[in-house]
Amino acid sequence: VQLRVGIVGGGQLARMLQQAAIGPGIGVEVLAAPGEVSAPDVVPTIAWGSPGPDTLRRLAERVDVVTFDHEGVDPDTVADLADEGFVLRPGPATLIYATDKLAQRRHLQARGLPVPRFGEVRDAAGLEAFAAEVGWPVAVKLPSGGYDGRGVWLARSTQDAAAPLSLGRALLVEEGLDLARELAVLVARRPAGDTVVYPVVETVQRDGICVEVQAPAVVPDDLAEAAEALGLAVADAVEAVGVLAVELFVTADGRLLVNEIAARPHNSGHLSIEACETSQFENHLRAVLDLPLGPTGLRRPAAVMANVLAADGSTDPHTALAEALALGPVHVHLYGKEPRPGRKIGHVTVLGGSATDASALAQRAAAVLGAARPAPRRPAGVEEVTR
Amino acid sequence: VQLRVGIVGGGQLARMLQQAAIGPGIGVEVLAAPGEVSAPDVVPTIAWGSPGPDTLRRLAERVDVVTFDHEGVDPDTVADLADEGFVLRPGPATLIYATDKLAQRRHLQARGLPVPRFGEVRDAAGLEAFAAEVGWPVAVKLPSGGYDGRGVWLARSTQDAAAPLSLGRALLVEEGLDLARELAVLVARRPAGDTVVYPVVETVQRDGICVEVQAPAVVPDDLAEAAEALGLAVADAVEAVGVLAVELFVTADGRLLVNEIAARPHNSGHLSIEACETSQFENHLRAVLDLPLGPTGLRRPAAVMANVLAADGSTDPHTALAEALALGPVHVHLYGKEPRPGRKIGHVTVLGGSATDASALAQRAAAVLGAARPAPRRPAGVEEVTR
Repeated sequence: VQLRVGIVGGGQLARMLQQAAIGPGIGVEVLAAPGEVSAPDVVPTIAWGSPGPDTLRRLAERVDVVTFDHEGVDPDTVADLADEGFVLRPGPATLIYATDKLAQRRHLQARGLPVPRFGEVRDAAGLEAFAAEVGWPVAVKLPSGGYDGRGVWLARSTQDAAAPLSLGRALLVEEGLDLARELAVLVARRPAGDTVVYPVVETVQRDGICVEVQAPAVVPDDLAEAAEALGLAVADAVEAVGVLAVELFVTADGRLLVNEIAARPHNSGHLSIEACETSQFENHLRAVLDLPLGPTGLRRPAAVMANVLAADGSTDPHTALAEALALGPVHVHLYGKEPRPGRKIGHVTVLGGSATDASALAQRAAAVLGAARPAPRRPAGVEEVTR
Repeated sequence: VQLRVGIVGGGQLARMLQQAAIGPGIGVEVLAAPGEVSAPDVVPTIAWGSPGPDTLRRLAERVDVVTFDHEGVDPDTVADLADEGFVLRPGPATLIYATDKLAQRRHLQARGLPVPRFGEVRDAAGLEAFAAEVGWPVAVKLPSGGYDGRGVWLARSTQDAAAPLSLGRALLVEEGLDLARELAVLVARRPAGDTVVYPVVETVQRDGICVEVQAPAVVPDDLAEAAEALGLAVADAVEAVGVLAVELFVTADGRLLVNEIAARPHNSGHLSIEACETSQFENHLRAVLDLPLGPTGLRRPAAVMANVLAADGSTDPHTALAEALALGPVHVHLYGKEPRPGRKIGHVTVLGGSATDASALAQRAAAVLGAARPAPRRPAGVEEVTR
């Protein structure tokens, strides 16, 4: 009676869930989209297809619990299958709050949890009215489907929001915030509500993409405690099961606000693989299988993760693996993805005594891997000349 | 140009090599014997068969390097393939010393390294002569093929050695030793000789089977240093590539002697997965691929591994996973093997401040998993009664 988990999606999260499943001997089956390689490269049992009702039902029939590596599943489909008696975690309510930012903002605000001042608008007049209330600039967001900075516009006038307004759909608008920093809290939660919370991390963004995560966040104790408490409160509010990532804004005027939530393992927790007593991936598996959760403490005083972003013209990062490993004690994770420019193809984690030292090494290694070039071939008999 | 490693053997070592390969994105292909499940459960690319010359050659053609999860490969076959230009690591010389204890004893002694007093005998007269020299009892060993205490006899007279003597083959005989403790040292070594050495561990045996490993070994500094130096010297002497495990005897009269060597990741290093900066499995992969080796230091002051041995009548250990995880911060590894009585079906690692506390918890969790019983089914309407 080996425990079996079905994972919808074959990306790097499914890949790292498989890595975590090997220890406790949890069986993994992945429903992957044709062309996905990250998880299919390392998981023997793959079902190929998109996560429609029939595919999902067949997956659910073969496993003890179905969970998700991405948000591309219709919560209604999940609700229908749950009604049929299948076990899918997180459940439909959590998935709605994780995919529909308007629903999430309203729900958290109704529970008294701090979110940016927001509104729903469909046209320029609505945006003008909202801006008259909170002042320009205003953040304009697609309620669903955006990631890594896509689907977000910072508008100093209705003009700047012409593109999203032209879509004619409901938009989430939020007060423009003067940010001091961004934090993230990971919570793992079992079906009956048992939780563990990971040390608060600081996330560093560039062009809307997370480039680095530092653990623990170097912030005053009361802020760290408030962030952890907020993460736990959000997890309860959305009835999370599994890992819930809560991204937080700290504003220049000292407010702590919920930015986004993700109802799955998250980039901000990748460093937990080496840095924490139990990784986010293992605790996600334990939580969705309703097994006791593991401790989350840091094994060293500090840890830094740098994402490997493919540079223009880069090739297989494995050609640079020796160079990256030679830099020092780095933990390299490569996802098997084709290195298209700007694409997140891996990450590097460094543990150490201070975030500063760890950050420098992690960034160097990530840059080496992201800029990988084919090994130069020198024709026989040709001497290398100084360039 | 993803790096690819072929592993001969589909047991738990191949399984844990796959776990270590997922991070750096190293591709794994396993040559498994029909019926093996540990690695085939978690590796997509499996070739089924025994490691004869043709199977091995086909595997070697598809990967960058072939390595081994067990000793069941003929060193001559490996030598022939190496002559053809294929890359197999460790190479034939190392494999001979790891599989033929007589050859190993002679080689290490010739290099001035400390081994028990030994001889080669084929009959009772030879055994009598050897015992007359070193005194009874005498350890009688099959030069190859034994493991976990099999193939070893402690003889107080030729009578006690009747079984091995009746085989009519060359036997390794050794002085009977009064042991104070057993240690083990793991070395990872690259083709050109770069090495890293892991902290010396103490191994605890019961009925010839390793039941527990403690890191670091609680021994005087000079003994720990001597053990590490001996491990490194043995690795050089046998031209190891990859991980070499050197099991050591400490005798009651204070001698440090080589017991056995294994030219692969080893049970004594399983705790390195969580306890060390780089696991033995990752460093084995790095070494055989000739990549820079990772640091080996302990992340916490102490770590203990307890093997999960299946008890009589036990069932799938997963039925006890919740109970084991509820005991405390344990790292559970289950190999997917059928729980035949006495069989090693997994291990549990606990990190902590002291070996004593970690040992108690690891042993409790291992016992729970090894004694797993089917979940009791209670007929509907029947109340549980106090037993």
